[in-house]
Amino acid sequence: MLAAARTAFAERGYDGASIRSIAAAAGVDPALVHHYFGTKDALFLAAVDAPADPEDFLPEVLAAPADARGEAVVRMVLRVWDGPARPGILAVVRSAVVNEWSARLLREFVLAKVIRRVIGSLDTPAAERDARGALVASQVIGLVMGRYVLQLEPLASARPEDLVAAVGPTVQRYLTGDVVLPGRRD
Amino acid sequence: MLAAARTAFAERGYDGASIRSIAAAAGVDPALVHHYFGTKDALFLAAVDAPADPEDFLPEVLAAPADARGEAVVRMVLRVWDGPARPGILAVVRSAVVNEWSARLLREFVLAKVIRRVIGSLDTPAAERDARGALVASQVIGLVMGRYVLQLEPLASARPEDLVAAVGPTVQRYLTGDVVLPGRRD
Repeated sequence: MLAAARTAFAERGYDGASIRSIAAAAGVDPALVHHYFGTKDALFLAAVDAPADPEDFLPEVLAAPADARGEAVVRMVLRVWDGPARPGILAVVRSAVVNEWSARLLREFVLAKVIRRVIGSLDTPAAERDARGALVASQVIGLVMGRYVLQLEPLASARPEDLVAAVGPTVQRYLTGDVVLPGRRD
Repeated sequence: MLAAARTAFAERGYDGASIRSIAAAAGVDPALVHHYFGTKDALFLAAVDAPADPEDFLPEVLAAPADARGEAVVRMVLRVWDGPARPGILAVVRSAVVNEWSARLLREFVLAKVIRRVIGSLDTPAAERDARGALVASQVIGLVMGRYVLQLEPLASARPEDLVAAVGPTVQRYLTGDVVLPGRRD
């Protein structure tokens, strides 16, 4: 079931993959998938090997005032990475960097479970959401790569609140500020 | 010689490792190292497996006016990654993410050969250089991870100049702007 779920989420994304189709691909009854995993959400977290559930952290971010949302995003990311889930997250990131399918799953996880939730809670025009979300991701991914993977100083040993103050305004600008938004070329 | 050079650069950094000590560790005469690699610079590029030489790209960045340096950094990075060196760079990044020693070498390469050169060309107080450089790195690394590794849209297919316009101001702020700079805690 997990293998079928990974394939489905990587190929069709979180929204595009249904429990019914995953069950069919695994040759089992959808009720069995529900029995083992409960919700599509829980199945997705298991498929991604997610070491932390964004639902545990997102409410605090979404409760921050709109003009402090950038700092709240950085604060949440650092709290999760500085916590007990770090080895697990690091393993997921490593796998995503060397494996195309893991990269798709991680991308889908970050987009569907974190970025769209944060952007969706703001007054962002629909046409701007993907670009603003991707720019936020670029800064946040780089911060965690620099601090936890490459361990660049002073990022690696800085106090979380110092990084919130330094990087929060960037995330805020991407979320709600005046930005030339990159477009997708198809 | 290359193995000894990798160990030396990873352990002591670019400035701390000397050709003499590398030759000693490899059990050869320093003249032999010079003969094979020419300069310490060339030896470092070979040790890091660098698929591109920053000297080919940096002069254009350093020639940009101080207040357009942020955009010039992003433009250079995208030009290098969008060029023929991409598979090679991707291999180095992948190796850095899964291997602690490769991470040290890549960090040292990015710091010594790119970031310090860009920061050093500005009027930055010495005490601010590491923090500003690391913040620039965080945004640039996240941009390349998002565009080339995770392939987040619209980053992945955006025109380079659109990304320069979106992300350049962030890099500029980190280089020369008003930022609460994170400090190192030892």
